[in-house]
Amino acid sequence: MARATGSETTAGGIFLGKTSYGKSDVRLVKVRRGKDRHELTDVRVDVALEGDFEAAHTRGDNTDLLATDTVRNTVYALAKDHLTGEIEKFGKKLVEHFLEAGPTVERVRVRFTEHLWDRITVDGREHEHSFVRVAGERTATVEGDGSGVRVGAGIDDLLVLKTTNSGWEGFLRERYTTLPETDDRILSTVVAADWTYYDGTDVDFGGVWRGVREQILVTLTDHYSPSVQNTLYRMGKAVLERFSEIEKVHLSLPNRHHIPYDLQRFGIENEGEVFHSDPEPYGLIEGTVERRT
Amino acid sequence: MARATGSETTAGGIFLGKTSYGKSDVRLVKVRRGKDRHELTDVRVDVALEGDFEAAHTRGDNTDLLATDTVRNTVYALAKDHLTGEIEKFGKKLVEHFLEAGPTVERVRVRFTEHLWDRITVDGREHEHSFVRVAGERTATVEGDGSGVRVGAGIDDLLVLKTTNSGWEGFLRERYTTLPETDDRILSTVVAADWTYYDGTDVDFGGVWRGVREQILVTLTDHYSPSVQNTLYRMGKAVLERFSEIEKVHLSLPNRHHIPYDLQRFGIENEGEVFHSDPEPYGLIEGTVERRT
Amino acid sequence: MARATGSETTAGGIFLGKTSYGKSDVRLVKVRRGKDRHELTDVRVDVALEGDFEAAHTRGDNTDLLATDTVRNTVYALAKDHLTGEIEKFGKKLVEHFLEAGPTVERVRVRFTEHLWDRITVDGREHEHSFVRVAGERTATVEGDGSGVRVGAGIDDLLVLKTTNSGWEGFLRERYTTLPETDDRILSTVVAADWTYYDGTDVDFGGVWRGVREQILVTLTDHYSPSVQNTLYRMGKAVLERFSEIEKVHLSLPNRHHIPYDLQRFGIENEGEVFHSDPEPYGLIEGTVERRT
Amino acid sequence: MARATGSETTAGGIFLGKTSYGKSDVRLVKVRRGKDRHELTDVRVDVALEGDFEAAHTRGDNTDLLATDTVRNTVYALAKDHLTGEIEKFGKKLVEHFLEAGPTVERVRVRFTEHLWDRITVDGREHEHSFVRVAGERTATVEGDGSGVRVGAGIDDLLVLKTTNSGWEGFLRERYTTLPETDDRILSTVVAADWTYYDGTDVDFGGVWRGVREQILVTLTDHYSPSVQNTLYRMGKAVLERFSEIEKVHLSLPNRHHIPYDLQRFGIENEGEVFHSDPEPYGLIEGTVERRT
Repeated sequence: MARATGSETTAGGIFLGKTSYGKSDVRLVKVRRGKDRHELTDVRVDVALEGDFEAAHTRGDNTDLLATDTVRNTVYALAKDHLTGEIEKFGKKLVEHFLEAGPTVERVRVRFTEHLWDRITVDGREHEHSFVRVAGERTATVEGDGSGVRVGAGIDDLLVLKTTNSGWEGFLRERYTTLPETDDRILSTVVAADWTYYDGTDVDFGGVWRGVREQILVTLTDHYSPSVQNTLYRMGKAVLERFSEIEKVHLSLPNRHHIPYDLQRFGIENEGEVFHSDPEPYGLIEGTVERRT
Repeated sequence: MARATGSETTAGGIFLGKTSYGKSDVRLVKVRRGKDRHELTDVRVDVALEGDFEAAHTRGDNTDLLATDTVRNTVYALAKDHLTGEIEKFGKKLVEHFLEAGPTVERVRVRFTEHLWDRITVDGREHEHSFVRVAGERTATVEGDGSGVRVGAGIDDLLVLKTTNSGWEGFLRERYTTLPETDDRILSTVVAADWTYYDGTDVDFGGVWRGVREQILVTLTDHYSPSVQNTLYRMGKAVLERFSEIEKVHLSLPNRHHIPYDLQRFGIENEGEVFHSDPEPYGLIEGTVERRT
Repeated sequence: MARATGSETTAGGIFLGKTSYGKSDVRLVKVRRGKDRHELTDVRVDVALEGDFEAAHTRGDNTDLLATDTVRNTVYALAKDHLTGEIEKFGKKLVEHFLEAGPTVERVRVRFTEHLWDRITVDGREHEHSFVRVAGERTATVEGDGSGVRVGAGIDDLLVLKTTNSGWEGFLRERYTTLPETDDRILSTVVAADWTYYDGTDVDFGGVWRGVREQILVTLTDHYSPSVQNTLYRMGKAVLERFSEIEKVHLSLPNRHHIPYDLQRFGIENEGEVFHSDPEPYGLIEGTVERRT
Repeated sequence: MARATGSETTAGGIFLGKTSYGKSDVRLVKVRRGKDRHELTDVRVDVALEGDFEAAHTRGDNTDLLATDTVRNTVYALAKDHLTGEIEKFGKKLVEHFLEAGPTVERVRVRFTEHLWDRITVDGREHEHSFVRVAGERTATVEGDGSGVRVGAGIDDLLVLKTTNSGWEGFLRERYTTLPETDDRILSTVVAADWTYYDGTDVDFGGVWRGVREQILVTLTDHYSPSVQNTLYRMGKAVLERFSEIEKVHLSLPNRHHIPYDLQRFGIENEGEVFHSDPEPYGLIEGTVERRT
């Protein structure tokens, strides 16, 4: 998120290391007013600039600084002509712009969090300008330093649950282990996936995003899960096998534990029917699946 | 939320007024393991008991108090046999139970917030035991005092937006008024609707709930909105006209303002395309639409 | 929160019931630049207007409506001259203003949530213009209909905990009761208190607010708590006994359960030392303590 | 947060990269029951294990995995004897333990977020077992791989504000710049600071933590701030100058903008008195200040 300027600025050898600055949480909504229907993009934008900002930090000299307010204005201004489709393409335009606009900017990172809307259906037809928010978020990150641009994308806040075909057995038992083994439990998680493209130039970003989301859902269903770890690996592998555009995918899968409630105390049998959904603590399983290049 | 016990307990005339207690945020998940597929109910339950709890409050005498931990246990225990369909029916069972279980309980209120899940689709078919969370929440409130039960239901967190066919004109202009009039703006709100049934005995609760949600969405699209106030009234009226089971409906519509970003400063025309989505402050419009009985 | 206009507007007997509207979450910061030091007020303001808004709701006629944007402007404009001390006094000015400004407004409710800041201490002295946020919130509600003004105040988000001198014994035991009795537990809650003044004209609002907060803390410490219910009553009673300006006080005390962790399974004794702090579910105890007038 | 196992597992060259797992959001409360008074530690613990978990991920073989439930049990069990003072020392014990307990664990990271409580004051004396939560959080991170342990600490959620002695002038002006210059504005931020110790063995962790917090507050007050960047650098430098135990400090300072409300439209002068506190977007300034070793 920054760079070392390396300059020593005090006698005691104290110096300014990596820095960055920018504008976060720019809430941009773009309407494209087509002849037949309107298209809607609803996105939060975070822009971070890295470079040589030592004069501002150590001497209070702002001469070469773009104001973060200017960064905000620019996001809206460029959205007019350049946010005409996928957010990833708009991100590349923003990176390019800020590398030029900031005299000492050396690297730009733009992160998008897109809120998703479906068209409202009226009499079986999608309405031309009315929308209802759906769950989950589409993210994208575009980063560049003038020598090239790196494009990534992601899925946030995708809650899934299967009521069976999942277990947790054969794990290590030692002094502090009390958890019983089970070959039938609820598996539930909030998928956060982030991936990077080999080359962000010629990708059907929307199509791949929808495909990754679909693949993650399908993989959840297609196997007995012996652990979140194994399901994580299977998801990553399936995504890479399906989309050759993707270099690697990172998955973060918090285990949202569902505990069978002890009803035997009341003379009631609980055969995998009544659960307490425990918000915390949660097992957190993370991993990256990559491709040998 | 309680009752006046009315007893004077100190010389200075200080007395205990209305009280209530219970368990909140009981996170219950019920799986019904059908032969062909599993059904899932994921609900947060709040139980509040009212009655004569003066002994506990003023004298520290807990003899007649159900522990809130007992309330929690009971919710899970009764879920086994009684949460077999709509949450409203389970609510009636809980009300009935707690009126009997608590020696000095005179009124019980159960509130549900149901998280909604869709089945995951694999190869065009709904999966039998795998689910993905969708947006919004279904709520229900069941309240009873032994002489009868009152059932209400609701929708929470339904975000909608239309990009046009909405305006705000002809309003009062005075000293502190600076807002320009417009006949074309974005209208966006987070619908919270709550309604009560005439008689909670013989209602297709799920069917009505889905119908109300659909009607609210359709009404949003079917008219030019001169104000949130007018759209609120139209929504309420349409719901009552469609469902004779419903006595009255309360709607709370925060106006999520979308401000056209001023691009003229940069020589760019903004013809209703680029907006700042402002999280606050928000106009808050509330109202009830009722039926003469 | 509103009024019944009572007018029947459709053949089917459907009519508009209670309504209200206004601006919520107006984030106002006021600096009073004294000669020696600056005073800071940081407050969120919610304004709700009630009255006859039927024309807007049912006919789309906005003629008599103050825009919520005007409401916002007004809060900032009046803050200049009228937010010079306690928020309660500013609230009375706002109520008075909006009753006049809105031709069909009949009742106004203003709610404040004040964020609290302490001065930063430097070399043992309070700094004249630098502040650090402290925990908790001060609230106030002012409501009027032209015939008088009703003033209330409150405390939000006051987390307290005592590690002993609290128990829960002698409660009802029945089929679903599994909780053991204890005469030594952690008692922790997030106090929300709301009170009303007999007469909001001549009160030292800040002094009383600080006194109520202090009294609630002191009462927490001054007795063995046999239940949250009893502690609630004691808090309310102590507040009323100390402040004759206060008519009644409502307390909402969620029981933040701290569960002794079962270490016996590992051959370790846990003598009230190691606890799991359980965020949910929580017992919720609410009650009002009043004064016979 | 993980490691590359490097093994190629499919024909297509897809392999498992870095992984980690553990338990997050373990809510531990420890009471030390001294003769005269009780000491309270209220902390959220996140444990992440890294190592060779390939068997679990790719083959569903859990043989060598510690269950995350075991991780949770262990945190509570070890807290009995080992959480007797600073969280950093407990962290070192946990790292040591998990390196031994997990057969294929190669690196352990423990992160603490401690909630802060003050004693309640009664009649001018600190109460022996009653507490009130105060704002802000103390964090600590302990990380080890068997060859050594790395200890860091931090401050979260420290909101500060100065009403004057701050400006923003002389910045770059270009096409999209509209912000006026000012030599008198409100400066407000939520300080997040993280630092690392040269050697985590012999540090007065609590004393340094309180000293860093105090220094950050004092530095905020001791200069005219020409930019958040400059204030960030001054804070980091002052911390390093004061505490030779600290190797480097990272600061993240979101600029919580306070916009003077335009009252001129109403014929009212606003001389730095009435502000709108804008929650978003926010300038985000980040940087590390280090020491040449």
